[in-house]
Amino acid sequence: MAVPGPGYSITVRVEAPPSASAAGDLTSAVGRAGGVITAFDVVESHADRIVVDITCNALSSDHAEDLTDVLRALPGVGVRKVSDRTFLVHLGGKIEVNSKVALSNRDDLSRAYTPGVARVCTAIADNPEDARRLTVKRNSVAVVTDGSAVLGLGNIGPEAALPVMEGKAALFKKFAGVNAWPVCLNTQDPDEVVRAVELIAPVYGGINLEDIAAPHCFEIERRLRDKLDIPVFHDDQHGTAIVVLGALRNALRVVDKDITDCRVVVCGVGAAGSAIIRLLQHKQPRDVIAADIDGIVHSGRGDTDANLRSIAESTNAQGRTGGLGDAVAGADVFIGVSAPNLLSAEQVATMNPGAIVFALANPDPEIDPLEAQQHAAVVATGRSDYPNQINNVLAFPGFFRGLLDAHAREITDEMMLAAADTVADVVDSNDRVNASFIVPSVFDTSVAPAVAEAVRRVVASERQEAESVTAASSDAAIPGAPAGSSKS
Amino acid sequence: MAVPGPGYSITVRVEAPPSASAAGDLTSAVGRAGGVITAFDVVESHADRIVVDITCNALSSDHAEDLTDVLRALPGVGVRKVSDRTFLVHLGGKIEVNSKVALSNRDDLSRAYTPGVARVCTAIADNPEDARRLTVKRNSVAVVTDGSAVLGLGNIGPEAALPVMEGKAALFKKFAGVNAWPVCLNTQDPDEVVRAVELIAPVYGGINLEDIAAPHCFEIERRLRDKLDIPVFHDDQHGTAIVVLGALRNALRVVDKDITDCRVVVCGVGAAGSAIIRLLQHKQPRDVIAADIDGIVHSGRGDTDANLRSIAESTNAQGRTGGLGDAVAGADVFIGVSAPNLLSAEQVATMNPGAIVFALANPDPEIDPLEAQQHAAVVATGRSDYPNQINNVLAFPGFFRGLLDAHAREITDEMMLAAADTVADVVDSNDRVNASFIVPSVFDTSVAPAVAEAVRRVVASERQEAESVTAASSDAAIPGAPAGSSKS
Repeated sequence: MAVPGPGYSITVRVEAPPSASAAGDLTSAVGRAGGVITAFDVVESHADRIVVDITCNALSSDHAEDLTDVLRALPGVGVRKVSDRTFLVHLGGKIEVNSKVALSNRDDLSRAYTPGVARVCTAIADNPEDARRLTVKRNSVAVVTDGSAVLGLGNIGPEAALPVMEGKAALFKKFAGVNAWPVCLNTQDPDEVVRAVELIAPVYGGINLEDIAAPHCFEIERRLRDKLDIPVFHDDQHGTAIVVLGALRNALRVVDKDITDCRVVVCGVGAAGSAIIRLLQHKQPRDVIAADIDGIVHSGRGDTDANLRSIAESTNAQGRTGGLGDAVAGADVFIGVSAPNLLSAEQVATMNPGAIVFALANPDPEIDPLEAQQHAAVVATGRSDYPNQINNVLAFPGFFRGLLDAHAREITDEMMLAAADTVADVVDSNDRVNASFIVPSVFDTSVAPAVAEAVRRVVASERQEAESVTAASSDAAIPGAPAGSSKS
Repeated sequence: MAVPGPGYSITVRVEAPPSASAAGDLTSAVGRAGGVITAFDVVESHADRIVVDITCNALSSDHAEDLTDVLRALPGVGVRKVSDRTFLVHLGGKIEVNSKVALSNRDDLSRAYTPGVARVCTAIADNPEDARRLTVKRNSVAVVTDGSAVLGLGNIGPEAALPVMEGKAALFKKFAGVNAWPVCLNTQDPDEVVRAVELIAPVYGGINLEDIAAPHCFEIERRLRDKLDIPVFHDDQHGTAIVVLGALRNALRVVDKDITDCRVVVCGVGAAGSAIIRLLQHKQPRDVIAADIDGIVHSGRGDTDANLRSIAESTNAQGRTGGLGDAVAGADVFIGVSAPNLLSAEQVATMNPGAIVFALANPDPEIDPLEAQQHAAVVATGRSDYPNQINNVLAFPGFFRGLLDAHAREITDEMMLAAADTVADVVDSNDRVNASFIVPSVFDTSVAPAVAEAVRRVVASERQEAESVTAASSDAAIPGAPAGSSKS
């Protein structure tokens, strides 16, 4: 099923005889071996030889080596060098810190550094809130991980997680102009993670938790939200939940069903699954059935994990038991955030007509989307080579843009629901929704500004509400008390 | 003595009558009130009025307000807006995080992010040392503070320290291409500072401690050096010591003295003073006398502070006692890193002929350099409006450039001595040394590359030495033991 992709792209520099058929010999050899050539550049041409850079996509690292061997085996051909383009992109890191101010002369230095900077420091010492205006805090987010659940790679630790966090930071800037900086912590103790983030928080206007394994991620997020006066967002949970909810709204429109009539199966109750269930419940689906490696989650299972217990209490109204097949039979929606190849086409066939299947396990989904398609009306995956890619990048950049612009101090479910609706609206507003187009492209630059605007609107309205409550309680102050004494 | 400088620079937008004398009236009013006009821009011109932006330097915030009042008092003149240029420079922060890689299409995304990034993560998980090649760690330094001793402002806390750390980061990039990121810690407990830096270290190739008060700074640096496999450098200590030692070498050349014949007084035994004394001792001065607020440091003073005790033991060979005046009488060199106006011209007059005075307290030196000059042969300060500015920016950017390039794991005194010699050489090599030119300009772009080269050279030679020691001990392995067993 897999096709050669740019994630395994190599450039092979070869010397070949200057014969008329050289180019054809080289490219057809790569083609026969299953490589996809994306560029062919003659670097040097001599009377006795030509030097050529052949850039091609492979299936895997092994396949890339096979392609090189195939070239080397051609008569008269020598391989000079093999460059892995993915590694080349990573050399020296993918992000950098730049100065926004000129430092060309003494005057510049006097304003941006000593002595001028002292006045800015004093202003912030007098009014700490000014840090959100006069420093990088205004536009900066920490991308925090403990390296315990990185992509599909698992617990690979903080150094090995860094390339992912740098990629995330690059996306933050690209899509929303946010300064994001990787914070890869050399600990997996939740107390230490919480304390470290608390200690570094002064520099940031928001915290994006990333690739932290469940159940620690829940505790870490909850405690940090209690302690910090800046928003804390675990992207694996809420970024996924926002995009899934948006995509689901459009998928339901395609099959013309109302969520309140639907039974939804969520397969996988880690970070993403739990957050999807919680956000989804605001939309009051008829029922939600959660399933994990031990089958359907129900309160009789005797789970000790607090997260599983809370999910058991809030889902599965009829107390179903059994395996994934039992959960899926007669369901309207399947949302998988678990592991490859857990769902069979036969099981999809037992779902209600107009079935919706989101198979989001990465890199390999719960079911091959082409198989799922045989029985489901709408299919989505996390993959880029199939329609309807559910990708967090549709949510997190714009979401934080909005939070930072609004100087938000916390995150509410209302903000996430508004973001989900916005992701859906981008496709839906022009009546463009169809079974192959329920979410915008990750390169649709209108998504992040729209999500940011939705978040700013919710922050503003919640702030207004809070103020009117304060005003009301102030009006209700004890008569005779000194003016203003009831405001704290 | 102070003159209006760009650290207090304002732009006042005024409306004035369109008379022929308007421009002259405005500028002369500012001049009479002691402001220095640096720009005069007509923004609008109408039949009945002109609108002008007057940009001028003031002495202080109060003086800037006076200048505005003077303009407002002119007949027919109205002030529309006053902008403080220093604050304008700081709006939204002085640094930003940018992506070094293109993210324009699916192929870019596949290499810089999923799925391609997974292979880079795996490579680092297999060989953690690869993080110094394939991530931002290769070129990144944390600028760490607890906000306890910021500039001359004292203990203003982490948020208010952020503008200084951002300025430092901007200088790191400007002078040495280093990515520096501010880490302003919300604690002043040394255990917590040490632990926090340990936890965030995976992302960085070096740690620059900044504006942490003595004596905690000594303990924090020592413990971090023990724990981390990346270099840890407290700039207030060692950056200052490097530049002072370089400047002193050239100053001694001006007065034609040898350091081994000199008695050196160091006034102030905080971070900078202690580091200067320690580095200076490698040069074997005849004697060093340290002095602080309680007078000359000697072992009979009963100090309990470990740093003071260690300095008492290694200085003041003759056991002198008394005040700063007693220390200075008959001395050859005065190095002040303490507080304003502690040294009198009369005291300088009691020094040996060819006296050298470094009065480095900031923003106001231990003695007005013009007064010191009456009795000293060479005078230096930390100020930019007087010759011989001793500024750390001559050391830290190039020093870290060299450390990062060499993948250094620790910092040695030899590296700092080599850097000091390099700072001196930049002036000395062309025989340009004179009493008003003992250190290069902070804008001399040849300094940082030269310092970096010196550091790389020392790292390489120390590494070679370490390897030859290993090889020698390997040669001396017990005969008959399996080959290589003595290498650990």
